[in-house]
Amino acid sequence: MGWMADETGLQRRRANHVALTPLSHLRRGADLFADRTAIIQGTRRTTYRDYHARVSRLASALIAIGVQPGDVVATLLPNVQAHAEAHFAIPATGAVINSINTRLERETVAYILDHGGAKVILVDTALLALAEAAIATLSGPAPRIIEVADPEAGVPATGRYREYEAVLGAADPDQPWLMPTDEWESLALNYTSGTTGRPKGVVYHHRGAYLMTLATLATWQVPHFPVFLGIVPLFHCNGWGHVWMLPMVGGTYVCCREVSAAHIYGTIAGHGITHMGSAPIVLNMLVNAAPGDRRDFAHRIRVLTAGAPPAAATLAAIEPLGFDVMQVYGLTETYGHITHTLWQGDLWDDHPDEDRYAIKARTGVSFPMMDQVYVAAPSGEPLPHDAASTGEILIRGNCVMKGYYRDPAATEVAFSGDMFHSGDLAVTHDDGYIRVVDRAKDIIISGGENISSVEIEGVLMRHPSVSLAAVVAMPDDKWGEVPCAFLELKPGHIADAAEVIAFCHSHLAGFKTPKKVVFATLPKTATGKIQKFELRQGLRTGGFA
Amino acid sequence: MGWMADETGLQRRRANHVALTPLSHLRRGADLFADRTAIIQGTRRTTYRDYHARVSRLASALIAIGVQPGDVVATLLPNVQAHAEAHFAIPATGAVINSINTRLERETVAYILDHGGAKVILVDTALLALAEAAIATLSGPAPRIIEVADPEAGVPATGRYREYEAVLGAADPDQPWLMPTDEWESLALNYTSGTTGRPKGVVYHHRGAYLMTLATLATWQVPHFPVFLGIVPLFHCNGWGHVWMLPMVGGTYVCCREVSAAHIYGTIAGHGITHMGSAPIVLNMLVNAAPGDRRDFAHRIRVLTAGAPPAAATLAAIEPLGFDVMQVYGLTETYGHITHTLWQGDLWDDHPDEDRYAIKARTGVSFPMMDQVYVAAPSGEPLPHDAASTGEILIRGNCVMKGYYRDPAATEVAFSGDMFHSGDLAVTHDDGYIRVVDRAKDIIISGGENISSVEIEGVLMRHPSVSLAAVVAMPDDKWGEVPCAFLELKPGHIADAAEVIAFCHSHLAGFKTPKKVVFATLPKTATGKIQKFELRQGLRTGGFA
Repeated sequence: MGWMADETGLQRRRANHVALTPLSHLRRGADLFADRTAIIQGTRRTTYRDYHARVSRLASALIAIGVQPGDVVATLLPNVQAHAEAHFAIPATGAVINSINTRLERETVAYILDHGGAKVILVDTALLALAEAAIATLSGPAPRIIEVADPEAGVPATGRYREYEAVLGAADPDQPWLMPTDEWESLALNYTSGTTGRPKGVVYHHRGAYLMTLATLATWQVPHFPVFLGIVPLFHCNGWGHVWMLPMVGGTYVCCREVSAAHIYGTIAGHGITHMGSAPIVLNMLVNAAPGDRRDFAHRIRVLTAGAPPAAATLAAIEPLGFDVMQVYGLTETYGHITHTLWQGDLWDDHPDEDRYAIKARTGVSFPMMDQVYVAAPSGEPLPHDAASTGEILIRGNCVMKGYYRDPAATEVAFSGDMFHSGDLAVTHDDGYIRVVDRAKDIIISGGENISSVEIEGVLMRHPSVSLAAVVAMPDDKWGEVPCAFLELKPGHIADAAEVIAFCHSHLAGFKTPKKVVFATLPKTATGKIQKFELRQGLRTGGFA
Repeated sequence: MGWMADETGLQRRRANHVALTPLSHLRRGADLFADRTAIIQGTRRTTYRDYHARVSRLASALIAIGVQPGDVVATLLPNVQAHAEAHFAIPATGAVINSINTRLERETVAYILDHGGAKVILVDTALLALAEAAIATLSGPAPRIIEVADPEAGVPATGRYREYEAVLGAADPDQPWLMPTDEWESLALNYTSGTTGRPKGVVYHHRGAYLMTLATLATWQVPHFPVFLGIVPLFHCNGWGHVWMLPMVGGTYVCCREVSAAHIYGTIAGHGITHMGSAPIVLNMLVNAAPGDRRDFAHRIRVLTAGAPPAAATLAAIEPLGFDVMQVYGLTETYGHITHTLWQGDLWDDHPDEDRYAIKARTGVSFPMMDQVYVAAPSGEPLPHDAASTGEILIRGNCVMKGYYRDPAATEVAFSGDMFHSGDLAVTHDDGYIRVVDRAKDIIISGGENISSVEIEGVLMRHPSVSLAAVVAMPDDKWGEVPCAFLELKPGHIADAAEVIAFCHSHLAGFKTPKKVVFATLPKTATGKIQKFELRQGLRTGGFA
């Protein structure tokens, strides 16, 4: 180990060892970029000076309510200004932010409030009924509600709770922030979407969030003063950390209450959006937007996409519209993105479109703050880089969660063998780029053969009438499982099952060809992920018979 | 503090806490960028795959010689490939790299070798005589010499020592690297230039070097695959960390043995250099290059400059030549640059040249990995942002040294009041940008007024005949001190002292106008800094009477 013969006087000190925390970015940004616009919500623009003061006010108000270091403070909010402010103010009191998925049903919200033990919850007026219903069923103490109204969006305050702006108005804009003294202190509590069983509470440390923000800037090569459209819900990995990142470069966060093609195009054209993140499903929405919803703009927009590999058809359609898409991959447990499809233009720019899109649909290579992200055999050994050997993605690095809150058993399982187990199955190409073939639980095993649902979905997305596709395993007496396809069609298109199956068969081996095709509106999570467990459940219960 | 009610199972583990170290960048780069060119030296190009293997071989050879974790391994090398490799290989054995300034005199090299206790030293063939002379006078054990020849540059091996390539050839390309388990382990030992008294040994930790590399990428916004010209000596803050940084983005490090205008222009044109660092004096060299030494190139080059603020005249001349210059500021004690003159183009692009260059000559704002960089009163309190109140720059953050090796007393002085004391005097503008007015020891106190030598030098640099200017305090019976200017003139130019003094007086208050002007070749350090102590000494001893 690198300890010199005499290390007298060389210990950590306040001057040379400061706990890494994303809070530092806003403190610095408030000095550097005081008069620049930090946040736009509707017609309101807030400077960095005021952003910092409002964060300090919220921290002051939370302390006045009785929030103490280590407490949990929850949010049930869309991507509004108060939500961004909460991301700094809650940790600035030493508390932990628990941003709850706004599309969850009452029972799960109640479970999360009970399990996390939130002392206070910031609730959008439009979500008060959900919060109240959940709180009514709690077994533990009820959190205090602060109502966040949005009158400009047609959501005025009910008058039943203290409203956010009034709370801020009565608070101290000079409240000092409590910075972590140990970068391992807890910062955020994010519940997994819980496709099976109870959601698990993923705990983030300050160190990981800091490194995520710095490495995203470096790897995505974000310039100073980006204008960022906040599509990714802040309750999803804290919006991939972008709200924490933006003050480093004096960026503007444009709030996005409504995820629709018309609103997104309007915001891009109106505010000159330069950067955004989104699930591929949002890209599809932009591609398939009605002509009246589109707006012209002259610049290009850099897009991170995650949640599923972008289909070639999506990429082919969206690039000419002005969007430069880079796929990233990660999980709630990894603060969001930890791999990216690093584009090596000098090698690939001249490739035919089909090849370029195939590369862009890969999961990619690790971010520089990660130690190891690789595809492993069950033994934990790396698999060959042959684009064929399939194994689980194992992850080690500083953007891996502390563990699951109040669930040491699940934590130990997730960390077995000194690596974090992603549950995703992938192959590695000869150039080291990995490609997710499926979630471990989404793989279809038919007659002993593994079938990637993602592969079949890729073929289905090339069908001219298909807007969205999901393939799941259907029980089968002979083969054990066979693929079943669920499809949403483009507006005005029709298709029939036999024709779609024939289309698949012309591109896929027989055993991979779906045996059944169902036309339906697909159930989706808040982040646009298709909820395959509902499709599987529907098959089991005969809902799609 | 942010510890939750129940942190069971949430402790640091191998999967979620990895010691930050710049070594990780090359390990990752060797996988991601295996076939890309990592280093160019003369006609030799080395891929990342081979770079990694050569580093492993050097580590293996050092271990075979007996180097153990915590040992010191020194270098006395120009910016050649072996020097870059040593920056990874030495720490990969757990040892500490001590890169020694090649322009030091024998006595100081001997002092450093004795004080640091190097076990092995890599020596360029052209510097063997210096190394041997120093080693002959050591009071402690002599380090083992590995000779690094450079036959292509006309420096063939002497045959008197084991030569670097032979050492590598006999070693193991698969030697595992010893990664730090604690990011506070010592990485490098860099002796200050020691303008007065003995040089002090600044000890770097892995954490700081890692954060420096990541924050430089993010802040300088370095794209993937830069082609970097290695002008900044690697013995100066380890070349500002750029050799450690480049593997993160698959960059190419172009070795630079010879710092001349002809060589630099030739390399820029020949290799398509995109990025470089240099002292302003090198920029002057490029501006004043003879026509035959210049080469045309169509692209623009991004330049970090440090060591002194770039003169307006230099900026005005170099920008049209294709160089985009950003000033950074730091010290050996801070791993190099910790502030930068962040350019806010939307605010400043339309300013008149004079104003733009004045802004670019400021010292700037802190990098995002730093906690605080500010101008303080003697009490440690921040001074007003009034562009006038002068105080010392105090620094806190993760890119501050561990301390001075074997000098706990000096370490305590440097860290008094929980801040690192830079010894530099500065003011803060109303927008928060600081501007160094002088080294504390370079300020001139005349009749009770503080005079910034930097301010007078800025005026002198605008004189049409002046190539380089240095102003120091000259003892004066009446005023205590008065300014004395030392000037180098441009080739073919003449000037006389009275005319220069009149020129200054037309731009400066009388008490700031130099009372004496000396035409001389200015003494410079290895990094192009003018050695003012020699000028002052010359004044005292009558050398410039």
